[in-house]
Amino acid sequence: MADLLGVAVLGAGHMGADHIRRLDRVVSGARVAAVADPDADRAAEAAAGLDGVTVLKDPVAALDAPGVEAVLIASPGPDHEEALLAAFRRGLPVLCEKPMVPDSTGALRVLEAEARLGRRLAQIGFMRRYDTEYRRLKALLDGGGLGRPLMLHCTHRNVSSPARFTSAMLVDSSVSHEIDAARWLLGQELTAVTVLRPTPSGGAPEGLLDPQFVLFETDGGALVDVEVFVNCGFGYQVRCEAVCERGSARIGDEHTMVVTTAGSAREEVAQDYLVRFADAYDREVQTWVDATRRGEVTGPSVWDGYAASVVAEAGVRALETGARTTVEPAPRPDLYAGVSR
Amino acid sequence: MADLLGVAVLGAGHMGADHIRRLDRVVSGARVAAVADPDADRAAEAAAGLDGVTVLKDPVAALDAPGVEAVLIASPGPDHEEALLAAFRRGLPVLCEKPMVPDSTGALRVLEAEARLGRRLAQIGFMRRYDTEYRRLKALLDGGGLGRPLMLHCTHRNVSSPARFTSAMLVDSSVSHEIDAARWLLGQELTAVTVLRPTPSGGAPEGLLDPQFVLFETDGGALVDVEVFVNCGFGYQVRCEAVCERGSARIGDEHTMVVTTAGSAREEVAQDYLVRFADAYDREVQTWVDATRRGEVTGPSVWDGYAASVVAEAGVRALETGARTTVEPAPRPDLYAGVSR
Amino acid sequence: MADLLGVAVLGAGHMGADHIRRLDRVVSGARVAAVADPDADRAAEAAAGLDGVTVLKDPVAALDAPGVEAVLIASPGPDHEEALLAAFRRGLPVLCEKPMVPDSTGALRVLEAEARLGRRLAQIGFMRRYDTEYRRLKALLDGGGLGRPLMLHCTHRNVSSPARFTSAMLVDSSVSHEIDAARWLLGQELTAVTVLRPTPSGGAPEGLLDPQFVLFETDGGALVDVEVFVNCGFGYQVRCEAVCERGSARIGDEHTMVVTTAGSAREEVAQDYLVRFADAYDREVQTWVDATRRGEVTGPSVWDGYAASVVAEAGVRALETGARTTVEPAPRPDLYAGVSR
Amino acid sequence: MADLLGVAVLGAGHMGADHIRRLDRVVSGARVAAVADPDADRAAEAAAGLDGVTVLKDPVAALDAPGVEAVLIASPGPDHEEALLAAFRRGLPVLCEKPMVPDSTGALRVLEAEARLGRRLAQIGFMRRYDTEYRRLKALLDGGGLGRPLMLHCTHRNVSSPARFTSAMLVDSSVSHEIDAARWLLGQELTAVTVLRPTPSGGAPEGLLDPQFVLFETDGGALVDVEVFVNCGFGYQVRCEAVCERGSARIGDEHTMVVTTAGSAREEVAQDYLVRFADAYDREVQTWVDATRRGEVTGPSVWDGYAASVVAEAGVRALETGARTTVEPAPRPDLYAGVSR
Repeated sequence: MADLLGVAVLGAGHMGADHIRRLDRVVSGARVAAVADPDADRAAEAAAGLDGVTVLKDPVAALDAPGVEAVLIASPGPDHEEALLAAFRRGLPVLCEKPMVPDSTGALRVLEAEARLGRRLAQIGFMRRYDTEYRRLKALLDGGGLGRPLMLHCTHRNVSSPARFTSAMLVDSSVSHEIDAARWLLGQELTAVTVLRPTPSGGAPEGLLDPQFVLFETDGGALVDVEVFVNCGFGYQVRCEAVCERGSARIGDEHTMVVTTAGSAREEVAQDYLVRFADAYDREVQTWVDATRRGEVTGPSVWDGYAASVVAEAGVRALETGARTTVEPAPRPDLYAGVSR
Repeated sequence: MADLLGVAVLGAGHMGADHIRRLDRVVSGARVAAVADPDADRAAEAAAGLDGVTVLKDPVAALDAPGVEAVLIASPGPDHEEALLAAFRRGLPVLCEKPMVPDSTGALRVLEAEARLGRRLAQIGFMRRYDTEYRRLKALLDGGGLGRPLMLHCTHRNVSSPARFTSAMLVDSSVSHEIDAARWLLGQELTAVTVLRPTPSGGAPEGLLDPQFVLFETDGGALVDVEVFVNCGFGYQVRCEAVCERGSARIGDEHTMVVTTAGSAREEVAQDYLVRFADAYDREVQTWVDATRRGEVTGPSVWDGYAASVVAEAGVRALETGARTTVEPAPRPDLYAGVSR
Repeated sequence: MADLLGVAVLGAGHMGADHIRRLDRVVSGARVAAVADPDADRAAEAAAGLDGVTVLKDPVAALDAPGVEAVLIASPGPDHEEALLAAFRRGLPVLCEKPMVPDSTGALRVLEAEARLGRRLAQIGFMRRYDTEYRRLKALLDGGGLGRPLMLHCTHRNVSSPARFTSAMLVDSSVSHEIDAARWLLGQELTAVTVLRPTPSGGAPEGLLDPQFVLFETDGGALVDVEVFVNCGFGYQVRCEAVCERGSARIGDEHTMVVTTAGSAREEVAQDYLVRFADAYDREVQTWVDATRRGEVTGPSVWDGYAASVVAEAGVRALETGARTTVEPAPRPDLYAGVSR
Repeated sequence: MADLLGVAVLGAGHMGADHIRRLDRVVSGARVAAVADPDADRAAEAAAGLDGVTVLKDPVAALDAPGVEAVLIASPGPDHEEALLAAFRRGLPVLCEKPMVPDSTGALRVLEAEARLGRRLAQIGFMRRYDTEYRRLKALLDGGGLGRPLMLHCTHRNVSSPARFTSAMLVDSSVSHEIDAARWLLGQELTAVTVLRPTPSGGAPEGLLDPQFVLFETDGGALVDVEVFVNCGFGYQVRCEAVCERGSARIGDEHTMVVTTAGSAREEVAQDYLVRFADAYDREVQTWVDATRRGEVTGPSVWDGYAASVVAEAGVRALETGARTTVEPAPRPDLYAGVSR
């Protein structure tokens, strides 16, 4: 079909390779037109077996490869700013993995650049907004039947953390998902953050402050607490309970097949976010492809990416100082008026 | 207090000893006045540490021991008929463990004897009627909100069967609980029974037809199916789902503490009916003591005990012949008009 | 891309239109090349907005339309035989919705035709084999950790039945899913069937025997029971519990978000099979497209389609006679040696 | 029986009357010997129908009534100190409802008085320690299989608060249960407390800070968070999740009968703590009676009552100031060495 959307994928690591597979074999209406990675072998391997793909080292050059109509950025976070700005200059629609830009100063430059364009081009990869359970919870809260949300209790557990994971990354990488999810679910901005640090688990690497307990206050008077525990050893668990004036709702409880044997009834717990959120990633990319082919930009915006950066930075300061830390974002450009989505 | 109810306990085996403990330490308003067991040592051991207890071998003599005002029959089933008739002659209130009388001919003699008295003296020990979950289900069905019950799906699993357990005992011992529970929950009599026999589990003793699948039809047009599996190896599980015209209700799912570790969320499953139904036994005996002190007789009646015998006998014939077998009970005496409770 | 698989879709009714949408917007690697429906308007409407689609009335002509490389049969059951035989003559791979052919005589002709070809061309649309929960259960049983399966307890409930649904259709339409699922999960053939009929629900249309309780015996000595209740009023529920020698496993319990409000904790129950099995349909068609592009035929075979017909016919006889009815299939051609998948 | 324990019950209000009923009709081995309440009518009403009970206005006089061998204090908190000291002077064993003494200064006087006796006489009424689920959790944590506890996440919700309930009472009355439960489960003392206050629910009375989110730090480096929401409107919910180094465990999820009707599967949620903890109260009093008859004192000690007072007072200061507040208890007398129980 002449109208398959040609996508340049920047970055051919774990996440980039997964997106290439998704665009090629799962998603309808798109094809991989270019793959860029500084590691040329890795790029070639990720593109193996695909027809009509330009493989290169330079991500910006990839934007100009034949047939490229849109960009999926899955390179390391520090490379995102340059790629986003290059895409903006070319008017190319973008799906950018999180973090949009790791530091809030760079994030602000991206925000200002898109605001100057006067129209949205980028969707940020907060895939939880495409998870079925999160969407049900969002719909329930928006419906208003439970009254105003008062608190969100969140759990974010990983089996183990990657090499070189730092105490700050529990806040600015792991919890960044909860930062976006809370802003989206509540339709409120996070205004202050406090981080509590129990004695680290013996299962955590030496020196890593794991687990942590992170508390956010919102401009709507709600409270968001997050247990983040990235070396829990027993499963990948993402849960959220919204407590409202007239009821509560909980998502993320394990539930698959129930197996009863040898004195206990067991339900398997997912071990990996690519399992837990596989459908959310598929739906995220399909939705992005569909909207792009219609000429629309939807989903989490650059403002959401910027806000996540600013809140995460405040969280890291709160972790370091032990003190309640307020969040001081730049003003929100008119382009992003209204809570996203 | 002068008015503690003096109880003669007949039988000091596993169940009798447990009831002695219950009357002495758990239940309010009663005391053990006599203990009888052909094994004098066992009787003495069960009565050890209690004050004012007459210990003897002869169960009928125990009914005449000082202070005896009521009788709890926990001797082997074949001894029940004589004990019940002796209690009837003395006008003593009785709580009789199941089976009331193992064969329906003997059960009929007990039924006729009580009917001749013209008043109820005996409560039969179908303890499930005192289990909180069963009572909730009964109340729900009686409330009528779900409409007429159409089917009961029952599960009855034991970890392993006792020594010398026979294929017939799956029906006339294990399933007898479901026979009573179904009659009580539905307020209907069971009119026909069919038994299906899958290839026995490798976990069952050689020659034992285990599991079996037992189907009952009722005079109200409902269907009751029971999986009975007495060597399932993995737990003691008693479940019941009532399917009605406008909804279904299920009891008996495992639920205690949920422990998540090493990739699975687990709930412990009870291994023993004394654990699963401990509260039901306590409530059964307390209710009996309370009613007896008020001069009342409540709970499952001798008709219920007789009906269970007749249905169980039909079930054993159905197992042996492979054919659908109708249940042919004697007429119900006026004394038992109305479904009990 | 030159290699998008061109699919002719036969039938543009509810199911056909849904498959057209799926091929166009959900599945990767395929395109709709032709749509055929005797109702030309319906065909045109279903194909609206798609490029390069031939729309016609005659299903066989559609197989010869430009670009057609494979066939998806979603026309009414009585039309399947002709379409399957036409596809076989052309050597076209087929995905055929269930029932493959409604009567077992016609099903046998299709079986013999494919057997004569000496290679498989058709996959039958038993989509439950692609449902995540069913696949987990299958993997668990195949793994052998729980020992030999002894019983399957199945529930199949619909909110309400379509117009003109007959008592026989509870068996040969609704339960046909359980017939295939049981054969597949157990890797055994069903050899006998008995149908029990409780008094119909007041919620069922006058004259419809609803619910029914269907019992299957297998050549491996297992027992399969199915509650089928197509006017239950409260939800679409498909559950299956496998009871094995060393444990049991259950799928299909409701579980979405838990909402607690006004005195109860509630989980929403799906109302429609297109909701419950949406992912299974997507995965079924994606798997078929992927295999077809690789030149392979996988999934439920024509033998599975034939076996379902024969068992369903025996089930209808069992319903009508009230008697246990044995299943008498034709011999299995060598082409289908080994239980499929 | 001559040896029924004679108990004086002080206070005949809601809780006192319930304990009188429990001693008379539920618990084995005790009898009510005296009832005292300043409201003589209320005392007489609560004692109606009991034999051999002295009814009076003066609680201290009740300790000297005929047959009194032990005391159950269920009067208002401000009256507890005098009653405890009077019981100590007479050497009478006591079960004292919580709060032991509302202010920590008075609590300290009671602590010092018992310490001077050199032996324990009083058990404090933290009934959760007798709840089956809490005991399972305690046993699991003590077993050590999950490793060291890192965090406890607690929920404490009431349908609505009583009249004249103050913002401070969320901490020093409601959360006092979690204060004791956390100390007991962890075997650690609470050393600091922070209280966060989201915008109050519209369902809370004007001026009441409800809900609150209370954070405790422990001398073992663990973190305890408590959502307390006393006008949640939808149920009485007490939950606790312990997060450990190698697993987590959760108690308090609703689970009774599952009723499926009209599109949802529902489980009833308890509305009242007397329902949720009925069994715990029964077991608490039975255990106290049994221990007292054996001449022993077990269960939560005066030190536990004192510690709860000190922590609760720090919590109220934390609520008022918004600041993290450290807990400064008096030294623990040797009598209470070792974590209680």
